[in-house]
Order: sequence, then C-alpha cells, then structure tokens
Amino acid sequence: MTDARYDVIGIGNAIVDIIGRCDEAFLANVGVAKGSMRLVDADEIRKIYSAMGPAVEISGGSAANTIAGIASFGGRAAFIGTVADDEFGRIFSHDIRSIGVTFNAPPVSNGTPTSRSLILVTPDGERTMNTYLGISTNLGEAQINLDMIRAASILYLEGYLFDELQAKQAFRTALDAAKRAGRKTALTLSDGFCVDRHRDEFLKLIRSGIDILFANESEIKSLYQTESFEFAAQNAQNDVRLAVLTRSGKGSEIYYEGQRIQIAVFPVEDVVDTTGAGDLYAAGFLFGYSKGLHLETAGRLASLAASEIIGHTGARPAVSLSGFARQHGLIA
Amino acid sequence: MTDARYDVIGIGNAIVDIIGRCDEAFLANVGVAKGSMRLVDADEIRKIYSAMGPAVEISGGSAANTIAGIASFGGRAAFIGTVADDEFGRIFSHDIRSIGVTFNAPPVSNGTPTSRSLILVTPDGERTMNTYLGISTNLGEAQINLDMIRAASILYLEGYLFDELQAKQAFRTALDAAKRAGRKTALTLSDGFCVDRHRDEFLKLIRSGIDILFANESEIKSLYQTESFEFAAQNAQNDVRLAVLTRSGKGSEIYYEGQRIQIAVFPVEDVVDTTGAGDLYAAGFLFGYSKGLHLETAGRLASLAASEIIGHTGARPAVSLSGFARQHGLIA
Repeated sequence: MTDARYDVIGIGNAIVDIIGRCDEAFLANVGVAKGSMRLVDADEIRKIYSAMGPAVEISGGSAANTIAGIASFGGRAAFIGTVADDEFGRIFSHDIRSIGVTFNAPPVSNGTPTSRSLILVTPDGERTMNTYLGISTNLGEAQINLDMIRAASILYLEGYLFDELQAKQAFRTALDAAKRAGRKTALTLSDGFCVDRHRDEFLKLIRSGIDILFANESEIKSLYQTESFEFAAQNAQNDVRLAVLTRSGKGSEIYYEGQRIQIAVFPVEDVVDTTGAGDLYAAGFLFGYSKGLHLETAGRLASLAASEIIGHTGARPAVSLSGFARQHGLIA
Repeated sequence: MTDARYDVIGIGNAIVDIIGRCDEAFLANVGVAKGSMRLVDADEIRKIYSAMGPAVEISGGSAANTIAGIASFGGRAAFIGTVADDEFGRIFSHDIRSIGVTFNAPPVSNGTPTSRSLILVTPDGERTMNTYLGISTNLGEAQINLDMIRAASILYLEGYLFDELQAKQAFRTALDAAKRAGRKTALTLSDGFCVDRHRDEFLKLIRSGIDILFANESEIKSLYQTESFEFAAQNAQNDVRLAVLTRSGKGSEIYYEGQRIQIAVFPVEDVVDTTGAGDLYAAGFLFGYSKGLHLETAGRLASLAASEIIGHTGARPAVSLSGFARQHGLIA
C-alpha cells in the first residue's frame, strides 16, 4: 500500500455534537432509548435543546471522529462529508483540518444548517444521541471524489449513511471505486437500531465486498437477530474475513481467518462520557492495520484510543494519540 | 436582603469560548502575552483560528461564568449582556438559561456576530485569550433593566466593560441604580492589561462606591503600580471595605475592616485549564456572601468552585456546585 496518498479515507455525516448531562428520567421524557442514536427533525431538536441543561459543543460525526483519531495517531487521513456555510460548518471544518486531515468539501449555502447531534450523557457516562442531519442529507455521489478514494489504502464507511438514500448511493459509488482500485474497505454498523432499519442491505453488502467489519455487541446481535454474542460472532466470521467486535467493558475480539484474538480494555479511572468510544476504537485499529502492525497490536491501539476518549467529554482526542501510544510502548 | 428577587445580577460580555491547546511557541507567534486577555478584530480572530489546533466551544464571558456558577450553587441569579441572533447567541442563551439564570435580552440582528474568545491553553493549564467583542459592543444603557438591578442584592460588574464606551456608560447607570436602591456593588478588575488601560477610572470608581472588589495578584499590583503584593493589598484595604484578592496556587486573602482572612487552595490533581478560575472563585464568594455566611466560608466556597473549574476544559461548572459544596461539608 506504499503507493497510497492516504492511509484511510472516511465518509460520513459531518456533525457538531452538543453534549450535556442528564438523568435517566430525562431520557425517558425525551422518549429515546438509552445508548442509541435517533434521527430527529428541526422542531424536535429545538424542543430537546430547550429542555436540556448546559452543554458544550465539540466536533463529532462517527466516521469523522475515527478519521480525526487516525490523524492524531500520525496517520494520513482524509474525510468526505457535507457542511453548510455556517458557524457549525466552520467549527467542523476547522477542527478536522487543524488535526491534519484532508477535508476539502466546499460548504453548501442553501439555508439548511450543518448537522448537529444533541448528546445526552447519563451519570454512568453512557451517551444517547438525537441527531438532526441538516445539510448532511445533501451528501451524494457528487461529493465523492473518486481520485481521493483510489488514493487511500482503506475506505472507511459509517453505517449511518444508509439512513439517507443519496448518501447510500454515495456509499456504493465509493465502495465500488475503492474495490476497483484494489483498496481495502471497512464498515462500521454504527447503531443497533440502524442495523434494524437496514439489516438485509447490510448483510448483502458485507457478504459481497467488505474487508473489515466493525460492530459492537448490540449491533452484531441485531445483524444476526440473535441474543447470543457467540452465535453472532460465528456468523460474522463466515461473512467477512476480518471482523472486529467490541463489547464495552468486556474488551473486544478480532476474528481473522479462523483466529480469535482477545483484546482487554485499557483501565479508565472514571468513565466520563462514552461518546466516540467505538469511533476511536476503529481509529486505533485502522491506524495499526494500515501501518501493517500485528492485529493484536492494532487491537491494543484501538483499546487505548477508546480509553482516552471515554475519560473526557467529547469524541475527539484531548491529547495526541501518537504520544499517548508511545507512552504506553505500543508504537516506537 | 430578603426583599430581593435575585441574590446577584451580573453585567458583562456574552461570549462563547473556543478553547484549544497550544505550546508556548504558538503564543509567541500569535504575539499575545501569556495569561492575558487581548481584544482582536474579526480579521485577527480568523487568522488565529486558522492557525490553532482543534477546539471545543463552551459558553464563557467573565461575569457570565460567575453568574452561572452562582446558579450552580443554588443562588438566584440574573445576567445582562448582548447576543446576536446566530448559533453562538443561541448557545450562550441556552447555556445560561438552562442553569436557571434569568437572561432575557432579545438577540440583536444587525449582522454583527455574537462575541467569541479564542482561548489558547498551554501545557501548564494557563489560558491566554483573544477576544472578538462582536455584538457585545452594542451593550449600552438601553440594555440595563433598572428593575432587575434594583431587585438584586448584589450587582456584579466585570472590568472588561470599560474597554467599550457604551458598556462603560451602562456600567455606571447600573451602579447608580443599585446604590440608590441600597444594594451592594461588586467589581472584578478582570485583567492586568485592562487595569493598565483604565487605572485612574477604576481607582476613582472603587473609592467612590464599590463595596466588594475582586482582583488577582497581577491586577491589584497593576492598579497600585507596585511590584509588592503586600503594598497593593494595604492600598486596597484603604480604598474598599471588602477586598478579595486571589493569588493562584498561593490561595487567596480577604480583607475586611482591618481583618485579613487567608483561604487555602483546594487541592487539584491535574490543572487542565485555568479558564474561569477567577470567575468561579467570585461565584463561590458572592454566593456565600449573599447567603450571609461567614467570610471564611464564602472564601472556602470560592476556592472550591475554582478548584472544580480548573480540573476540566471550560469556564462553566461540569458538576452541580451545590452538590460539590455539600460533599465537602461547606453547605448543608
């Protein structure tokens, strides 16, 4: 993969997170399932925002967080997504570019605002998301720069893109271009309910051409409609060459050509906010994988990055992940 | 003060902070004195933003942080400041209202954006601020709701208001109304360079009618043009009945009618970001004072609030300060 200009290119929704704390009763009132991501319209997001407590604003977006994490590890990374010509668009663009990611989408000025997600964090640190897609619904084939896709060793896609028809088209176009160029393709299932909405399409896609699949326990169980993680993992092994399954506090498991590699969690003193845990796990893994490190080392980098992100508010690294990984002796 | 509707009303610039980390060399390049607040224009703020790393956005503003802190302690608080009809204005308004503060200024739609401050945090946790005042320059006498001023036990003013002619007028109008209503008045000197710019006016003001003066070491030294903290403190005692002087890691000192009460710092494991330390110190003190607690208890509440704020990024409390104070046995 030495001819590649980027280690990883990601495609996803370009979101600014609005993160506040709440109790379980608040979630019940809002009517959102704890730990999930729900799409809401402009009216609904205004309503929830009015009701919630003080918040902080931090760039987010699942694939965007992963790409920012890869850049923080020192990887060469690019991102494709759509922002509006507004403050949130400027925040998103600044944050991702300033960490060294190539992101050159021109902002769209059609009156639709940049995507935002109201993220409610309960006292246990769990995050629950209410996302207004806004201008991200504009993401389509026109935004897919095929030269950039072909120039990246790995194409990384978020399952959330399947919630919008145009984005799904963009997803397929990008996937096709990457495969024709002989690149690796990776997918995250994003969310259990998202898998529920698109199960058959996801399964078809995974069986037909995804090299690396990321999923957490609820997502992989939802994909195979089972209550048994072991059963789901067995199915995943049959469907994809490299399956990377995360299990929160129970660590993660990498399935590759009949091998099963178990990765322990890195200890975290205080789980402040789980937002981005899966995204940063994927960042560490993809960084290690793209650099040709052992799968176990890639898994440990993944686990390390996840531990960094859940120790503070927000889904973007608060420290340099390359420095953090060096401190832990995982990279030289 | 039982007839008062609010314990404290604050007047200040309504700012959203954009907080990022940098090294000392970056500060030198930007040309800003470490630890200070500098006013910049729209061009300059764009330039610095382009050059700085990833950031997070959190409501700020010196007096606004203090008022939010008082509300977090359970105090009845109100704020007067000006926001534009834009995203940052909505963020500022939401955050301060959602913590229970009365803030009813209608947003201004004249094309000038809501104030923002680029806050650069060095590895030692020290913050250096570049503030674009934007719509805050609109703050004037017209925004001063005299009924609200008269309805508050204490009027709290930030020295930063002296940097704008209209705001200075508003400041004087509010001060006059509070005094006529028999209320207490409090002032923070805000910043050493700010004191430098307005020394004579500040001195005149303090001597003629401020009840409580807040200053840190560099501000009080600048006010009395001395290198000796003791000399400055002596002068402050002669000029104001209640002087509350903070000395960072050395703790703080309260001077009241010949008494000197020393307050130790609350231990903090890791100084993450000093933004808002002085503001939250003032919050704790004013909350305690408005509730009629002993000055020493007010000082300890002040020190506790400062310790909470420097342990995380941003100048708004990440936990309920009333709960935090109860945990430490400072309030029942």
